[in-house]
Amino acid sequence: MSVFTPVGTAELDAWLLGYDVGTATELTPIAAGIENTNYFVSTQQGSYVLTLFERVGGEELHFYLALMSHLAAAGIPCPSPVRRRGGSASGMLSGKPAALLSRLPGASIEQTAEDHCAALGEMLARLHQAGSIFPDHRPNPRGARWRRDTAQALLPLLPPEDAALLEEELRFQSLFHLPDLPRGVVHGDLFRDNVLFDAPDGPRIVGVIDFYFAGEDAWLFDLAVCANDWCVAPGGELDASRTRALLRGYHARRPLTALERGAWPVLLRAAALRFWLSRLADRQRHDDAHLGRAKDPAPYRELLRLRIRAASRLPWL
Amino acid sequence: MSVFTPVGTAELDAWLLGYDVGTATELTPIAAGIENTNYFVSTQQGSYVLTLFERVGGEELHFYLALMSHLAAAGIPCPSPVRRRGGSASGMLSGKPAALLSRLPGASIEQTAEDHCAALGEMLARLHQAGSIFPDHRPNPRGARWRRDTAQALLPLLPPEDAALLEEELRFQSLFHLPDLPRGVVHGDLFRDNVLFDAPDGPRIVGVIDFYFAGEDAWLFDLAVCANDWCVAPGGELDASRTRALLRGYHARRPLTALERGAWPVLLRAAALRFWLSRLADRQRHDDAHLGRAKDPAPYRELLRLRIRAASRLPWL
Repeated sequence: MSVFTPVGTAELDAWLLGYDVGTATELTPIAAGIENTNYFVSTQQGSYVLTLFERVGGEELHFYLALMSHLAAAGIPCPSPVRRRGGSASGMLSGKPAALLSRLPGASIEQTAEDHCAALGEMLARLHQAGSIFPDHRPNPRGARWRRDTAQALLPLLPPEDAALLEEELRFQSLFHLPDLPRGVVHGDLFRDNVLFDAPDGPRIVGVIDFYFAGEDAWLFDLAVCANDWCVAPGGELDASRTRALLRGYHARRPLTALERGAWPVLLRAAALRFWLSRLADRQRHDDAHLGRAKDPAPYRELLRLRIRAASRLPWL
Repeated sequence: MSVFTPVGTAELDAWLLGYDVGTATELTPIAAGIENTNYFVSTQQGSYVLTLFERVGGEELHFYLALMSHLAAAGIPCPSPVRRRGGSASGMLSGKPAALLSRLPGASIEQTAEDHCAALGEMLARLHQAGSIFPDHRPNPRGARWRRDTAQALLPLLPPEDAALLEEELRFQSLFHLPDLPRGVVHGDLFRDNVLFDAPDGPRIVGVIDFYFAGEDAWLFDLAVCANDWCVAPGGELDASRTRALLRGYHARRPLTALERGAWPVLLRAAALRFWLSRLADRQRHDDAHLGRAKDPAPYRELLRLRIRAASRLPWL
């Protein structure tokens, strides 16, 4: 359960006076999410998600909310912030910056099939294309700099074997000039729970949510994050048919360049590293009594090891 | 036939007075080689190779000759410059800097087998280790900077398809920070004709010659140059068993790091590119009537294409 900041109905009603949406008829906490506090809110006007931002604010928050408005206007089915009277997309609630966002239909899926992966690839390419004309700029908040800084802080705390793996992978990643890959806004966290389908076995995506790790990076990074979550076999290896479906779906709308094909194994490693690191950092940081339960880093360490092995395979040794 | 600078017996005898080797009993032009003029020279004291340097001199030549002295002293079977009275390793002959080098036994081979490749790998690792304590420094003269400059000069002269391939590969290579790979002195040109075996089917290397492209670079580059020449099947693809023998031979003496395993497909491309470019440049530059016949660039363009295809293979598209 991940409600970090409780909100009462009286507080909510007072806050909603800043909007033109009527008064609340529903206020239901949402358990999912480890970064923010979320509620379903209904009013006479419609259904919304209320998000209280636990860690972001100011220009950073402005970027996320403006990006969602931009993408929604471009036809990407993502939450769009409802404007307050006066035009602002957020306001303070219970001491936190908060926004009221359109609530999307559909549900996320656990078991992915080729159809889902193909639809995801196509949607991701559309998202990248729509994002390419977004005027604001912000680097990927979990990009190369964050990776270096986080790793430096974690290294002294890790068991020797993990520290060695981390250092070796940082050195490997430092071999690459990723700025030269085609780039733009990436979602950065497009796991299964951030994509909503029209039906459990339905191939139509009706929602893409949780843009709070978005920023500029190599587009291929986003695709690698997806492959590592959507296209894995139980052991962690990539499943060939679902990976093919993901890449084909993407490629059909935004063809992958020769550079990107060459860099694919590197980005699969970078994407695995990013989530291993963030989970390690979350585990260090979280006070479990208060905050949501941090996800286990171990599966992403394994994923990283597998991707390294696949990329480094010299068939001859 | 590649004698660019003729030398007469009278000239030679006068020049040999600077040495302590006696007078010439043999002066035979050597046909091989497209960079320098070489003669077999015999005297009462022994058998030598006389090299007249057509393009290098000064500090550059000093580096090559000092490197060969260093490696020979460390047990690498390479030519060692005979010192002139006074200690210099070279002197002017027919208007060119010239050196008298020890002549090595053995002969190069055309058809490579696993044994040859294993011996080559082991010798290359020994060469790298011996070179790692060589005190002089000089970047690979056919390294990244040369590649960029040469490509810029060639691009306007190439057919559109070749220019596109070249530009794309330069961009791909620019993705990598090769300075982070283990590095040191590389031979840079260790083709079959620069390695001498004790017998045509003998696995023992008794000579490594032609160090005039040596300099500092990623050691893996040297190994990739070797693989691209020694381990190819008739179509240009790498032959698995000979490549395995090469890498194993090397690895047994100087273990390849995880970084190097990951970068191997990139270096195979870099090594193919280097020779495609130099052959293109030679073809532009050479006056065939005077200079030796330039090698055909086309096979190395094909090799580059094959290495790109192998490195970029997304099994899923």
